[in-house]
Amino acid sequence: MVQQSTVRRGAGGPPPGVVTAPEDETVLTSRQAFDSWWEERRRSGRFRVTRIPFAELESWSFEPGTGNLRHDSGRFFTVEAVELPDGTGPPASQPIICQPEIGILGILVKEFDGEPHCLMQAKMEPGNVNTLQLSPTVQATRSNYSQVHRGGRTRYLEYFAGHRRGDVLVDTLQSEQGAWFWRKRNRNVVVRTDEVVPAHEDFRWLPLWLMHELLRVDNLVNMDARTVLSCLPAPSGPAAAPRHTEREIRSWFIEEKTRCDWQPRLIPLAAVRGWARTAHELGDAEGRQFRIVAVRVEGAGSREVASWSQPLLRPAGPGLAVFVTRRIRGVPHLLTRARPEVGLLDLVEIGPTVQLRPGQHPDALEPFVREVATGAAGRVRYDVLHSEEGGRFHHALTRYRIVEVGEDFPLDVPRSYCWITPGQLVRLLRHGHYLNIEARSLLACVRSMR
Amino acid sequence: MVQQSTVRRGAGGPPPGVVTAPEDETVLTSRQAFDSWWEERRRSGRFRVTRIPFAELESWSFEPGTGNLRHDSGRFFTVEAVELPDGTGPPASQPIICQPEIGILGILVKEFDGEPHCLMQAKMEPGNVNTLQLSPTVQATRSNYSQVHRGGRTRYLEYFAGHRRGDVLVDTLQSEQGAWFWRKRNRNVVVRTDEVVPAHEDFRWLPLWLMHELLRVDNLVNMDARTVLSCLPAPSGPAAAPRHTEREIRSWFIEEKTRCDWQPRLIPLAAVRGWARTAHELGDAEGRQFRIVAVRVEGAGSREVASWSQPLLRPAGPGLAVFVTRRIRGVPHLLTRARPEVGLLDLVEIGPTVQLRPGQHPDALEPFVREVATGAAGRVRYDVLHSEEGGRFHHALTRYRIVEVGEDFPLDVPRSYCWITPGQLVRLLRHGHYLNIEARSLLACVRSMR
Repeated sequence: MVQQSTVRRGAGGPPPGVVTAPEDETVLTSRQAFDSWWEERRRSGRFRVTRIPFAELESWSFEPGTGNLRHDSGRFFTVEAVELPDGTGPPASQPIICQPEIGILGILVKEFDGEPHCLMQAKMEPGNVNTLQLSPTVQATRSNYSQVHRGGRTRYLEYFAGHRRGDVLVDTLQSEQGAWFWRKRNRNVVVRTDEVVPAHEDFRWLPLWLMHELLRVDNLVNMDARTVLSCLPAPSGPAAAPRHTEREIRSWFIEEKTRCDWQPRLIPLAAVRGWARTAHELGDAEGRQFRIVAVRVEGAGSREVASWSQPLLRPAGPGLAVFVTRRIRGVPHLLTRARPEVGLLDLVEIGPTVQLRPGQHPDALEPFVREVATGAAGRVRYDVLHSEEGGRFHHALTRYRIVEVGEDFPLDVPRSYCWITPGQLVRLLRHGHYLNIEARSLLACVRSMR
Repeated sequence: MVQQSTVRRGAGGPPPGVVTAPEDETVLTSRQAFDSWWEERRRSGRFRVTRIPFAELESWSFEPGTGNLRHDSGRFFTVEAVELPDGTGPPASQPIICQPEIGILGILVKEFDGEPHCLMQAKMEPGNVNTLQLSPTVQATRSNYSQVHRGGRTRYLEYFAGHRRGDVLVDTLQSEQGAWFWRKRNRNVVVRTDEVVPAHEDFRWLPLWLMHELLRVDNLVNMDARTVLSCLPAPSGPAAAPRHTEREIRSWFIEEKTRCDWQPRLIPLAAVRGWARTAHELGDAEGRQFRIVAVRVEGAGSREVASWSQPLLRPAGPGLAVFVTRRIRGVPHLLTRARPEVGLLDLVEIGPTVQLRPGQHPDALEPFVREVATGAAGRVRYDVLHSEEGGRFHHALTRYRIVEVGEDFPLDVPRSYCWITPGQLVRLLRHGHYLNIEARSLLACVRSMR
């Protein structure tokens, strides 16, 4: 493929509006090269995010009657509410973000000198703690790329959906945060090309080993990049006998779904109970979960339009996601847990060993995983703070941890848990509705463990 | 396995209440043997289904406010309504059956003389045109087997979910009619045993070849049996090159899902528009779709309780489901179509080439499949009238057809269609959300083509 790209180098002009550089100059081959490009991108961006009262949102308003927060165009997303099960008395409820359209998260891959590289983007998003994070080549809702808000076209989309489409390595629909999104899914795509790709200043080719290194940095690789990376086919290791066959895993998973027979329902935001709305925010009475806030965004950079306002969901604190890993007959396994979440399309997906939302305390965990969650037991192999979706959440951080345990950790686990190898998880990711976003983020991190 | 079952024959007593016969006598080795058992079962059943006004339903009523039709216990199912998209003006709506709990459809398989046999049940259901049909070993909602209506225990359940559980050959969650059910799914299970299984008079072991023969008889093999049979692993034929790889098929399917971005919502039955309720039925104004009716069921036989009343959905006429089949480079393919249906959990599943509900006319079909649907073109290889779920639908019939076409039939088809081999479809059935119930029924029939 390298040969072919050399042959074709220089053929065809760049699309109008794309700044080009010779492709060699856009491949970052060291951590130093990355750091200096990143610093330069960070300084060149002008981006200001200001909290505003709801009344100052442009084109967004609380719909009369339902109270749902929506855009005048009917597009993008709405904030509505959902009933939660609780067994006794009237069900509790919470706000939830509804975004029915399926977007694309796509990473373009190309080999240079036999090594796979990802075309990554320095992308500003209003909810990120540090604004700029490393994102997939394409990260676009349908509204984005059909240009509902009259911004520019989506760069590189033609490699995923158009006439330049390359070899598809990954193409799968995956869920996002089931606690905050109502049935949101995105198409996770990896495409391999051998064309010469004109490089915009916000984009660089990063070798896969460098991506893994950057995954060990706090708040750098964004959620969308992590989920796409998690779906990459795993390098086939030595033949290893996993604890369970894939059929057994599917049976276990169906059994867990079967035991969960409630059906969450959307209700109007006006009907939500236990949440209070001020001019500036809508939050739970105890301040333990999250608030819906409004921001104005002003800036110039890689965003499609220069200025807009929008609602964001702001969690009350960081979450925690932990995978326990253990060798079983010499083969590394991850301890997964089937977990219902109110916003998941099929309600139950496979999550990490431990997953705590803001406001959930480790004391509520089952004893056999509590010490691992708090770091009191096991050997911490990975411990990084990552950001969740910066286009919908405001400063939403999750602490991602992988903790290795020894042979004293029980192999027989309660029925909602299951030992699965990373390779088995990646094969399940060919299909949707299996792994939740937290488990996928951690799966990407597993590959970056030293 | 036969040896082992011979060795263990007679070991252990039958569970209390199960009539036993020596296992040899319960294996039906010929069509004649089946016909005489069936006739005997038909005569022994006493089962009367009478239409009644809604007011005579016991323990069922229209809930004040919502108007939803529900059981006093809150279990079984409800009749509610759903909004349909239509693009202009307020959306249309229709009643829909909501049944959140996941049931089990299980067929027990055992080899006799090296030949796989299925333990099938002669089961009466109130909605069947001929009452008695051939059903899976176990066909039970959670309400059934947790005995909400205080009937008997579910026979043979222990081979699927309990201590006698055998080798699991199939275990997958599959959807049911997306036009009439709101997100209903059942667990389709096939378990292989080598135990000696005490045989109740309503149950017989039928060789797989005989099952295929019986699939060519009108209204005999019920919907639940057909869907479970469709999931059986296909015998591996000679290596054949399909038109599309499985990854291409998944990409095509995701593309079709992505293009369908409406989200159906439940509404109260009282809010349904264009439907009229009398004392006896709730139907669409033009009488073209279906009616909700009420029946009283009295009888003795294999049902869990001897007498009850319940609502049923009665379609205005038979439906039509057609698979076009064609050899491509010598390999048989089926022409599938990705089709949105309002009640499907993920909205879009893969259906047959043609699928017409009652009230839908072939004139509405795209020209290239219209002649095949009406039988004017192609060679009809299979043409049988089957019943849909007799526990929820009243006299719901579908004409299932497989039509073989020649090389003059176009290989390039509109984008919602895709050529897929039967073997590829069966592999997709390991996972849920791929094939709709009509496509699965037809897939079972493909195996029974002469």
